[in-house]
Amino acid sequence: MITGKNYIGNTLSALGSKTYTTFNPQKNTENTIVFTEATSDEINDAALLASKAFQTYSKKSGKDKAVFLRAIAEEIEALGAELIEVYTSESGLPTGRAMGERGRTVGQLRAFAAHLEEGSWIAASIDTAQPDRQPTPKVDLRKMLVPLGPIVVFGASNFPLAFSTAGGDTAAALAAGCPVLVKSHPMHAGTGELVASAIIKAAEKTGMPNGVFSNLNSSGIEVGQELVQHPVVKGVGFTGSIRGGRALFNLAANRPEPIPVFAEMGSVNPVVILPEALQEKAADWAKTYAGSITLGAGQFCTNPGLLIAIKSNQLHQFSQVLAEEIVKVEPSCMLHPAIVGAYESNKAHVVSQSGIEVLAESSQEIKGNYGRQIVSKVEGKMFLENPTLHQEVFGPFSLLVQCEDKQQLEQVVKQLEGQLTGTIIGEGEDLFNYKEVVSALQDKVGRIIFNGVPTGVEVCPSMQHGGPYPASTDARFTAVGVGSIKRWVRPFSFQSWPNNLLPEALKNENPLKILRTINGVKTTNKV
Amino acid sequence: MITGKNYIGNTLSALGSKTYTTFNPQKNTENTIVFTEATSDEINDAALLASKAFQTYSKKSGKDKAVFLRAIAEEIEALGAELIEVYTSESGLPTGRAMGERGRTVGQLRAFAAHLEEGSWIAASIDTAQPDRQPTPKVDLRKMLVPLGPIVVFGASNFPLAFSTAGGDTAAALAAGCPVLVKSHPMHAGTGELVASAIIKAAEKTGMPNGVFSNLNSSGIEVGQELVQHPVVKGVGFTGSIRGGRALFNLAANRPEPIPVFAEMGSVNPVVILPEALQEKAADWAKTYAGSITLGAGQFCTNPGLLIAIKSNQLHQFSQVLAEEIVKVEPSCMLHPAIVGAYESNKAHVVSQSGIEVLAESSQEIKGNYGRQIVSKVEGKMFLENPTLHQEVFGPFSLLVQCEDKQQLEQVVKQLEGQLTGTIIGEGEDLFNYKEVVSALQDKVGRIIFNGVPTGVEVCPSMQHGGPYPASTDARFTAVGVGSIKRWVRPFSFQSWPNNLLPEALKNENPLKILRTINGVKTTNKV
Repeated sequence: MITGKNYIGNTLSALGSKTYTTFNPQKNTENTIVFTEATSDEINDAALLASKAFQTYSKKSGKDKAVFLRAIAEEIEALGAELIEVYTSESGLPTGRAMGERGRTVGQLRAFAAHLEEGSWIAASIDTAQPDRQPTPKVDLRKMLVPLGPIVVFGASNFPLAFSTAGGDTAAALAAGCPVLVKSHPMHAGTGELVASAIIKAAEKTGMPNGVFSNLNSSGIEVGQELVQHPVVKGVGFTGSIRGGRALFNLAANRPEPIPVFAEMGSVNPVVILPEALQEKAADWAKTYAGSITLGAGQFCTNPGLLIAIKSNQLHQFSQVLAEEIVKVEPSCMLHPAIVGAYESNKAHVVSQSGIEVLAESSQEIKGNYGRQIVSKVEGKMFLENPTLHQEVFGPFSLLVQCEDKQQLEQVVKQLEGQLTGTIIGEGEDLFNYKEVVSALQDKVGRIIFNGVPTGVEVCPSMQHGGPYPASTDARFTAVGVGSIKRWVRPFSFQSWPNNLLPEALKNENPLKILRTINGVKTTNKV
Repeated sequence: MITGKNYIGNTLSALGSKTYTTFNPQKNTENTIVFTEATSDEINDAALLASKAFQTYSKKSGKDKAVFLRAIAEEIEALGAELIEVYTSESGLPTGRAMGERGRTVGQLRAFAAHLEEGSWIAASIDTAQPDRQPTPKVDLRKMLVPLGPIVVFGASNFPLAFSTAGGDTAAALAAGCPVLVKSHPMHAGTGELVASAIIKAAEKTGMPNGVFSNLNSSGIEVGQELVQHPVVKGVGFTGSIRGGRALFNLAANRPEPIPVFAEMGSVNPVVILPEALQEKAADWAKTYAGSITLGAGQFCTNPGLLIAIKSNQLHQFSQVLAEEIVKVEPSCMLHPAIVGAYESNKAHVVSQSGIEVLAESSQEIKGNYGRQIVSKVEGKMFLENPTLHQEVFGPFSLLVQCEDKQQLEQVVKQLEGQLTGTIIGEGEDLFNYKEVVSALQDKVGRIIFNGVPTGVEVCPSMQHGGPYPASTDARFTAVGVGSIKRWVRPFSFQSWPNNLLPEALKNENPLKILRTINGVKTTNKV
């Protein structure tokens, strides 16, 4: 049952007077449950509970934390049909997507559990003493990763499950040993509360300390600001707009004690289509991209918002087929009236720019919060001169940049901002002939794709999700995959510490049987 | 020969009109060589050269970069006696220290070379495709670490070699594949130019691109500010004061594209001396700490500036022996008149605080730039109430905090700021009886030491040098040891990329024979 209250640790609380509801974009009506925004006192209580919980939670074994993460996954599954219904009623997304995203969410939790059970992620390193070394003896040093402290996670509008309450950021932080304070996303506060209740249940069942998790309702920016500025908070995870992410980054950087912010923000995910590929497969790629651009109403952070190619008859064919195909796709419901509104106004702003030619825009009859997909075209020269065209339009939108020649193509790629992904479509000698273009694209992105689409972010160790600014605020980390745990830990060294008082990971006996570095060599041996 | 000019890539240049000299603190006279500060044009030229060099240098193999690093070490050694003479004339440090630090510097370069030759640091991870997976096929994904781009390194006043021109930050950045722009430290500009000439020679001999390294003279803060704000710069390494490091951090965070700053800053390196240790070994530890406090005129970032213990007869004995021993130590020459000046005024400021009792201050006759060592004492209550006493006094200084009881001891530790190191001195049941104190100290530091001294930072994989703010600006990284390479790289994924065009580290055949993660399992096998 959804109460509309906050979870301050294990306790439901609604002391505030500011309330709000969520919205059903399919029915174009407000949902009925009233949510109470967290007050400053509740925020402070949650933060202090998290700080206290850190004292014990940070010392839990990997196996204990894995039990907790697996229990969260089970409790989320146990929410059953209610979760799916609330999810669709708050997002306008279809049931299939809700179920897929739930699967991804519990899959992530279990992947982190397995990562903890295996245990080598902790990067244990041991350098043994050499008391007789000349001119000075060498001391015994042992290093491992330890958690940072309480982490604030901001729910994302476009992933009510997989990048929200128990999403990737939360799973990674809990796996690391950090308590989590979630700033619930106002568009899906009910989904958030349900998932929060699952986490709390799991925490209680597995004996985790009160305060290891809190869920704070919020309809504006104040709750998030207070959380990021709270002295006990040691890190921030965010998925959303550049404006929002940068604002939080600035707040965190200006604290007396600055803290790291990992914000995964905007991206136009440029796709470079090379000449031989156009020669051989223009129509095929046009059809594929009509699908990728409109997938999930274009509301994925890896949506291909920019297609770049050199002018040719084949490119003309590509743009014609793309125009034909894209209007065949049924328009989809977007997440919220505010998102439809922003989409329509950003789209209109781009289309009004000098030199923009609309190739096709859906003209089907649509319901209230549906977004009409559009593809348009611009000359390379105009693109280079107009920074507005480099910005993300969140929704089923893509802009084809038609370059004069190879040189202009390279120039366009070099002028792009940082991106989550870049894609190269090529055949035959394309990759060889355009290696400068490929190299320039690599400098701009976190993931480069060959002959595919950027949508679809596989959760696996080799995935990089995050790229040079403004794709993310710190390209040295990923937001997807078990490697994302590294955002919330720091290396810590013990010098000459008694073996019996060392953490298990660093003991001579290697009781965890993990892979460690001993005197520079990787091994599972004892010392 | 020292020219007083800047290295803009391989070219000596002195276009500016602002000049300065270095100072010989032992002789208390200015040195004769005149250095010309870099102009904005020279800074811009060096940055653009670095950006261009990045295009080729970032793609050099680990083996090629290792050859370069080893050549730098050789060229530094080939500088012979001149380097040692210039070093001592610019720092007041003795010849033995100069030789030791040179050994450490070339040792670091060679350690990074070996790290590159072994090659597994690049964290190659491969997830192979599963085209038949249901409901969606799995794509081939391969991830490795790639360099960030040009890095600015600030030379440190207290380590003219090991943390300056070719010091740890430079070695780590060059190893990562990043060109380096050094902001030379004005106190040892001659040492800096000599080392820069060695790097340039090594770069030319080993075929590295012009711009892979530049050395920029600077006597104020403007050169550093311009470098940190230059758009092509992608990261900053700094060792120095909290004020300087925080100013650079703020500049970098406020850029249109924020960049990471790894600043290793102040630390008082608290030492907690527990009751049984005082009972058994008060005099021994007092003697040991008299040495650690005065080592190198107290100018190490790990100098023990704070001793904390519970009031007892044994603590009284400890403080008496410490007072007796510390005045027996010969005062040492400090790095520069400005540093002596700051030391004397900070010391006077602390001693003037309410409740401070001076235990002993050296009264020996001293020369111009020598620093008189001092130890003083304060009650725990006064310490808790006065933040001034928590600040670092750079020099041969230590403050003994005398706590009423266990609870106050814990309170004192909990109120400390972030530190590079913390030390526990204990015997028998001390570690068990004071486990909350130990745990509180762990939360504040990057390295915890048992029954030792914090001075002496071993260069090895298990060393952590860096801690919670303000010890450093990002506790997730270390400034010492081969792990420090991770500050200057980011993960990068290739999706469905043709095997023959992948970097060697990710090819099916594993031509580099490195340890990789294939479908989640660590192995040196082929795919």
